[in-house]
Amino acid sequence: MSIRVGIVGYGNLGRGVEMAIKQNPDMELTAVFSRRPVDQVASSQNIVHISEVEKYADLVDVMILCGGSATDLPEQGPMLAALFHTVDSFDTHAKIPEYFDQVDAAARKGGKVSVISTGWDPGLFSLNRLLAEAILPEGKEYTFWGKGVSQGHSDAIRRIDGVRSGVQYTIPVEAAVNKVRSGDNPELATREKHNRVCYLVAEPGADLARIEEEIKTMPNYFADYNTEVHFISEEEMSRDHSTMPHGGTVLRSGKTGTNSTQIIEFGLKLDSNPEFTASVLVAYARAVYKYSNEGHVGAKTVFDIPFGYLSPKSPEQLRQELL
Amino acid sequence: MSIRVGIVGYGNLGRGVEMAIKQNPDMELTAVFSRRPVDQVASSQNIVHISEVEKYADLVDVMILCGGSATDLPEQGPMLAALFHTVDSFDTHAKIPEYFDQVDAAARKGGKVSVISTGWDPGLFSLNRLLAEAILPEGKEYTFWGKGVSQGHSDAIRRIDGVRSGVQYTIPVEAAVNKVRSGDNPELATREKHNRVCYLVAEPGADLARIEEEIKTMPNYFADYNTEVHFISEEEMSRDHSTMPHGGTVLRSGKTGTNSTQIIEFGLKLDSNPEFTASVLVAYARAVYKYSNEGHVGAKTVFDIPFGYLSPKSPEQLRQELL
Repeated sequence: MSIRVGIVGYGNLGRGVEMAIKQNPDMELTAVFSRRPVDQVASSQNIVHISEVEKYADLVDVMILCGGSATDLPEQGPMLAALFHTVDSFDTHAKIPEYFDQVDAAARKGGKVSVISTGWDPGLFSLNRLLAEAILPEGKEYTFWGKGVSQGHSDAIRRIDGVRSGVQYTIPVEAAVNKVRSGDNPELATREKHNRVCYLVAEPGADLARIEEEIKTMPNYFADYNTEVHFISEEEMSRDHSTMPHGGTVLRSGKTGTNSTQIIEFGLKLDSNPEFTASVLVAYARAVYKYSNEGHVGAKTVFDIPFGYLSPKSPEQLRQELL
Repeated sequence: MSIRVGIVGYGNLGRGVEMAIKQNPDMELTAVFSRRPVDQVASSQNIVHISEVEKYADLVDVMILCGGSATDLPEQGPMLAALFHTVDSFDTHAKIPEYFDQVDAAARKGGKVSVISTGWDPGLFSLNRLLAEAILPEGKEYTFWGKGVSQGHSDAIRRIDGVRSGVQYTIPVEAAVNKVRSGDNPELATREKHNRVCYLVAEPGADLARIEEEIKTMPNYFADYNTEVHFISEEEMSRDHSTMPHGGTVLRSGKTGTNSTQIIEFGLKLDSNPEFTASVLVAYARAVYKYSNEGHVGAKTVFDIPFGYLSPKSPEQLRQELL
């Protein structure tokens, strides 16, 4: 029997989950739950208004929460964790402990399992930080992001007066990455690790020099980086900048025994950030299903779930084929 | 209280474990168990003859088995799994299912936990194969090994008549690695993935051409590869080829949703293969200790153990610092 999955939220991530479920024969999509009026959602799927979600308690095995971390998940996470096994990609780092506690209380009350904060960062990158630190306790860890579109930085440039549309790419400084790969354990300032490159469409008649200056001096977002600003046409924007690539690298360089340098590297190169995050969520939906069948309850993170649960294969098959 | 660790077998791996324990303040070495007469083992450690091992049942929390997979572990693994929680690096791939069953039966009889077949391959590479396959079910996986010393191939060239000493390096073909990284999903023949480079010291008067020919045509080991053979002096051998570097890369390139190419890569660059393997074993010794404290028993693999157990940090600390 297939694992019956529900999707809550139907933006880029929700649509990514819909596509990822089709790649996994042991899973099926029961319904997509949306806050918008059902007749306004364009989809061939079974679209259900979120107010009806409780009726699906026996029809959905795992609910994948695809809302944003700013306002959607803090509300939906605990509410749905009491009713369903859930998986989400909550990524407001500073609030993870608080969110974990709220989801944990709700999930325990409902006898459910919720995996919070999965995806690739937090998620796969977190797993690799833990692994590398546990194996190489005497060492130094580096995370580089990109080349990829940062939503937060793109939003920030779009809020500037005179900007019609904009995309910001985070680009790791190749020389810095190579220095770490060489085992040097360099001290790297913020500016030495990443560059920021912005492509903007300006409103007609806007003061381009003022826009560029506002971006380059924006605290937290750009002031500490080497930032490039390019003004382009509407056509170039939609032709060259409509996809959402991303990726990055977690590196740990450590020393063992006889002063040997040992380097562990985990990297992602993604054509589509939301589709990849969606694929991670779907694998963890399977894990939650298998894990909950063993009687576990409560909020969990990627640190708590054995990898074997992510796979549709049996333990015997995994040992034979993948070990 | 520290986790009390015992080491069985005192070759390169056992000495690596001894050094790795010193890097982990939550662990201490109780004793090294050896088959050799105790007075013949040069060490500042507490060396105990293996025949005395049963007396340590209450003095050792986790036993790390550092013997070889050919003859040591098939005998010692099941025997010690009945008496201690154990960790080993059993790597005879075809015999893993059989070995698992034997260790599992012994561990269950003794109420113990044994993690078998950890290290980096099998071990960390296996984990990454599973993870990448679960996330990107439509894709192709590639493993490249090296640059590094292969013990099996080095042993094979040393068995040839007229060879005094020899070291074989496995070297991944850079062009093939880059092709995979580009998302091409190439079909690669054995010869296209790795080259083999041998450094030999010949006996005086040996027929060098015959040795080179014997190596290059040796079935399984060299015949399917582009192989280089270099004859060097005894001095060069001990100066340039006495360390045991290794490493490699597990790559999976897959497609999601809108035909997006998504690439997951995990790589190791190791100055010392045995010291790194030892560091992995020590992290899993901690995991076995924490995991067994929750009432688990039986044989386990890296696929069964959540990453959180590898770390000395509490779940709260891990969520706060590493997620």
